[in-house]
Amino acid sequence: MKVTLIGTSCGVPTKERGLPCVALQREGEMILFDCGEGTQRQMMRFGMSFMKISSIFITHFHGDHFLGLFGLLQSMSFFGREEQLTVFGPRGIVEICRTAASIGHFKPGFEIVAKELGDGDQVQFNGYRVTASRVDHIVPTLGYALEEDVRPGRFDLEKAKALGIPEGRLYKELQMGREIQLGGRTIRPEDVMGPPRPGRKFVYLGDVRPCPEAVELSTNADLLVTEATFCEDLAERAEETGHSTVKGACGIARRAGAKRLLLTHFSPRYSREDILAEVDFDPVFIGEDGMSLEIPYPDQR
Amino acid sequence: MKVTLIGTSCGVPTKERGLPCVALQREGEMILFDCGEGTQRQMMRFGMSFMKISSIFITHFHGDHFLGLFGLLQSMSFFGREEQLTVFGPRGIVEICRTAASIGHFKPGFEIVAKELGDGDQVQFNGYRVTASRVDHIVPTLGYALEEDVRPGRFDLEKAKALGIPEGRLYKELQMGREIQLGGRTIRPEDVMGPPRPGRKFVYLGDVRPCPEAVELSTNADLLVTEATFCEDLAERAEETGHSTVKGACGIARRAGAKRLLLTHFSPRYSREDILAEVDFDPVFIGEDGMSLEIPYPDQR
Repeated sequence: MKVTLIGTSCGVPTKERGLPCVALQREGEMILFDCGEGTQRQMMRFGMSFMKISSIFITHFHGDHFLGLFGLLQSMSFFGREEQLTVFGPRGIVEICRTAASIGHFKPGFEIVAKELGDGDQVQFNGYRVTASRVDHIVPTLGYALEEDVRPGRFDLEKAKALGIPEGRLYKELQMGREIQLGGRTIRPEDVMGPPRPGRKFVYLGDVRPCPEAVELSTNADLLVTEATFCEDLAERAEETGHSTVKGACGIARRAGAKRLLLTHFSPRYSREDILAEVDFDPVFIGEDGMSLEIPYPDQR
Repeated sequence: MKVTLIGTSCGVPTKERGLPCVALQREGEMILFDCGEGTQRQMMRFGMSFMKISSIFITHFHGDHFLGLFGLLQSMSFFGREEQLTVFGPRGIVEICRTAASIGHFKPGFEIVAKELGDGDQVQFNGYRVTASRVDHIVPTLGYALEEDVRPGRFDLEKAKALGIPEGRLYKELQMGREIQLGGRTIRPEDVMGPPRPGRKFVYLGDVRPCPEAVELSTNADLLVTEATFCEDLAERAEETGHSTVKGACGIARRAGAKRLLLTHFSPRYSREDILAEVDFDPVFIGEDGMSLEIPYPDQR
């Protein structure tokens, strides 16, 4: 499971930073979180095909977080996409997708399904689920947690051999979670399999004023990607505009017990050094456009 | 009067080429023609302030020619613009501007005036006028000609001296077009001024299938910027999709007696060499993002 920052600016782009978008790649699938203007071109720059996107999650309707949808949908259609695309977001996403799918002379060549999510809503996909949580900002805003399904425990080859199970079909039966019969004995999966192993958890917070809901959603995240618009010199401004400072973002990660923190959505007034000087969490990564991180399994760390 | 290509791709952006937009700068003013996605960031890359834009002319409503309006308007507002902005386009521009000015949580901090133009409509500005002409494409599309007002003729210092006019205030009167009295004689402006001199003419064609209307609009243009989506290998495709080939674009310029031709809106399948191999006009420029050309006065050439 790999996460790539497509754009790391806030409000307006800069020469160096595009508008907010995070891509998550997992088993051949790609999921976007937010989609600022220029997302399609940024993905080209980073050698990523936007044709592989299966779903898009929008946190809220400030322009920098969703206006890239319009051009992205048109380009997908231009390149002949036929597969359905689902776009999730807070209330209003249906109307925005309807506008995007009919503006000017555009007629999409594929189905765009828009789904409005509310606080606590969960969507189950093949192998993972995404939970939406209302978080604090100046307009209705969702944060998203993507959690993989639990994986079966490890198969213990030594135990299987000690029990005299012949290699092959019977191993597979046990790995699939089924009992087998061997020489009059019943062997259960748990006799040869370790305990179920948790999947990975990724959390994305778009715009967010630090709040208990953001901490709750981020609990034990293997990777938390969140905004850090300001430094402490503008802590009041952050509070007023519903944003996080670098310290505020680190506080969310710390209280949530997140394993790794990736900061993004920086005001252009700050340098990398300004941001680094205020980080208060380890390990932390200062986001740059095109930066990718692999998310390891909890038991691989 | 300087023209800069902000984006020179067609349909979808590429790593090297942004979506269609042309900026014209004249006496401290900036005018955009078309506004594809990413226009605001491209302008930043080229060190051009989008805060100076006084009006925008959209040719038609294929997404690559106007979707950059949405983010551009939001960024202008974000940076505190207060001056009115006028956006011109074919029928439909009012609705699109209404959408752009109200999408998501956006409330512009300045007035956006949208004006629908039809075939032959002319808008007079301070020192120049813009004429819209319906041109051939697969959807309703306008081409635009910007023509400067005629300038007074040159003041002939030798003649003025020969007539015994003292330097100073009286020169100015004559230059302003007023008669003067000198020692019982009446001296008229035309006694010391050359013939009125034409201003410059700039023509922009967005998407266009070569047609008499495009030629008519481009007549004697000092600079014609037009699309050249395809080469001759796809001449049929150009015809079907309402576009020009490189030869087709050169044909418009030739028949119109244009002084210079700047090609843009290239399909990504072609290299600069492919395009150069088919040009059939001189002088011609193969557009690149960020390329600027000064438009000289007709009598300065």
